[in-house]
Amino acid sequence: MSSIPTLLRALSGETLARPPVWFMRQAGRTLPEYRALRETTPDFISFCLDPEKAAEATLQPMRRFPLSAAIVFADILLLPRALGQDVWFEAGEGPRLAALPPIEKLRAELDASTDRLSAVGETLKIVRAKLEPERALIGFAGAPWTVATYMLEGGSSDREKARTYAYTNPKELDALLDVLVEGTVRYMAMQARSGAQVLKIFESWAENLPEDLFERIVIGPHKRIVEGLRAAGVTGPIIGFPRGASSLAELYAAKSGVDCVALDVGADAAAGRRIQKIKTIQGNLDPLLLRAGGPALDARVDQLIEQWASGPYIFNLGHGLLPDTPIPHIERALSRITGG
Amino acid sequence: MSSIPTLLRALSGETLARPPVWFMRQAGRTLPEYRALRETTPDFISFCLDPEKAAEATLQPMRRFPLSAAIVFADILLLPRALGQDVWFEAGEGPRLAALPPIEKLRAELDASTDRLSAVGETLKIVRAKLEPERALIGFAGAPWTVATYMLEGGSSDREKARTYAYTNPKELDALLDVLVEGTVRYMAMQARSGAQVLKIFESWAENLPEDLFERIVIGPHKRIVEGLRAAGVTGPIIGFPRGASSLAELYAAKSGVDCVALDVGADAAAGRRIQKIKTIQGNLDPLLLRAGGPALDARVDQLIEQWASGPYIFNLGHGLLPDTPIPHIERALSRITGG
Repeated sequence: MSSIPTLLRALSGETLARPPVWFMRQAGRTLPEYRALRETTPDFISFCLDPEKAAEATLQPMRRFPLSAAIVFADILLLPRALGQDVWFEAGEGPRLAALPPIEKLRAELDASTDRLSAVGETLKIVRAKLEPERALIGFAGAPWTVATYMLEGGSSDREKARTYAYTNPKELDALLDVLVEGTVRYMAMQARSGAQVLKIFESWAENLPEDLFERIVIGPHKRIVEGLRAAGVTGPIIGFPRGASSLAELYAAKSGVDCVALDVGADAAAGRRIQKIKTIQGNLDPLLLRAGGPALDARVDQLIEQWASGPYIFNLGHGLLPDTPIPHIERALSRITGG
Repeated sequence: MSSIPTLLRALSGETLARPPVWFMRQAGRTLPEYRALRETTPDFISFCLDPEKAAEATLQPMRRFPLSAAIVFADILLLPRALGQDVWFEAGEGPRLAALPPIEKLRAELDASTDRLSAVGETLKIVRAKLEPERALIGFAGAPWTVATYMLEGGSSDREKARTYAYTNPKELDALLDVLVEGTVRYMAMQARSGAQVLKIFESWAENLPEDLFERIVIGPHKRIVEGLRAAGVTGPIIGFPRGASSLAELYAAKSGVDCVALDVGADAAAGRRIQKIKTIQGNLDPLLLRAGGPALDARVDQLIEQWASGPYIFNLGHGLLPDTPIPHIERALSRITGG
């Protein structure tokens, strides 16, 4: 048996007898032990920046489930916070952000921002020391456009304001994306130095973007992040997740420079196969189906493996695990995927 | 000059020197004359079912703008209402629906439902009589899955409940979709008899559906509607709009039986070109860009024409016109499209 993590083997283009598997948002609210841990630090940002607790949250699902990889417990809004835009979470609501600081002010914080995120590096070091060597460790960041939507809108939204801003203030948006690209490169390079073997860029809001805008604000920044990471000496594989990219996921696969494209719920077999000719693919079980369970779940798990596991493939969801997903459904799906 | 409407020529597969153009939701809140008319009948359903007023709302944008087609002023929720599920609109909010009646009760109302929608037929007759012969008249209905999401959820939503229902209650959902297919065929055939030369099926919520579910609840019902309409003697072209179908729009184009696929905002040039080899395409200007205006709008209008007008193509938006779109932006875009 090779001790190289199966996730890394799949990411290097290898086809495995059984695909590696992990689930987006596998750490967190689904698990009672997580909810108990969270109660000890009610403030979410403080929890994310407590390396011992964040490491424990990262490891909890690894103890319960036969997952191939852990993903560091953190939040995509830690970066704007580190760049000087205040971020907080109201109980039971989404994130809130203070007014967007001037771009020069954000840029002036770039040097300090990575230091302010050092807790995430500490979390990774603790997890890597405790995690079995055959299980991979993933670091991540939000993609610049997705993070910018929160920074421009002050929280969760339909992104209508941010998308309009992309048309009316293209230079200002490009400047903001540039700062975020630079901050993300530094942040992710630090994560790689701290033990992350794989890095994932989460573009949660790639949907409803016309092709020209998608190229400018999604593909361009992702490409510059990949190039920046390579220039910084990061050699590990990079996964990109352009959620909602629609048929543009193929353009993204061809141009972004990432090593693996994570497919969302709506991505189809034909498009996946075309992407799989040039990249490893990951995805795309519907989290609603994992929560619903039953024969439809079994059938779909089998179908996804049939459909994609004859090439380089990582089993995952098409979006994050839903908090009220029954644990037996996760166990049952994993049993079919791993053949265990 | 041919007096055959340019919309019909494009829908029959012809490539025109200038593409025909119309805008989804071209009739309505954007126009001050519409807002004045609406004030005379504040209840939205009553307004839709008043043929004189609905015809006037349909014709208002035709007087202002050089549009190639009119689309009847109506609402996709008139059908569930005609099938016996009460629908109402709260001011400033979305639609509300009463609890879903048992499926047998809905089915028993099929015969009566088309009669209850006769006002829409009257509207079409009035519009057709007043509209210039070289401008086409479009009838429409909501697609079964989209209508079912409202019926199941009681109003606008994230469709999470309805999508879960598709997994947990497949037989019940299929039965509901069957009733809606049958009701839609009768409703649209009546629209065709009343003067609608083109019919459009609006699947507003095709997004986030896995391929197998998409085939079952989107492609299947659309195909049965097309077949039902043809069996009922309807010969006019049918446009399908699977909004959010992502890369599955190509599968939809190949299998649904519609004559034209309307592309949403995120559909790209390459996918559009592949679809255009077998169908007329329509789309896909971002309504946010039409509202924003400026040089980015001009450039995108020109680019869309460059991209697609060398084949059978209808210029349109990728989603509905936004109520606060400045009228000069509409005029400017139309001037570039029509070369007028």
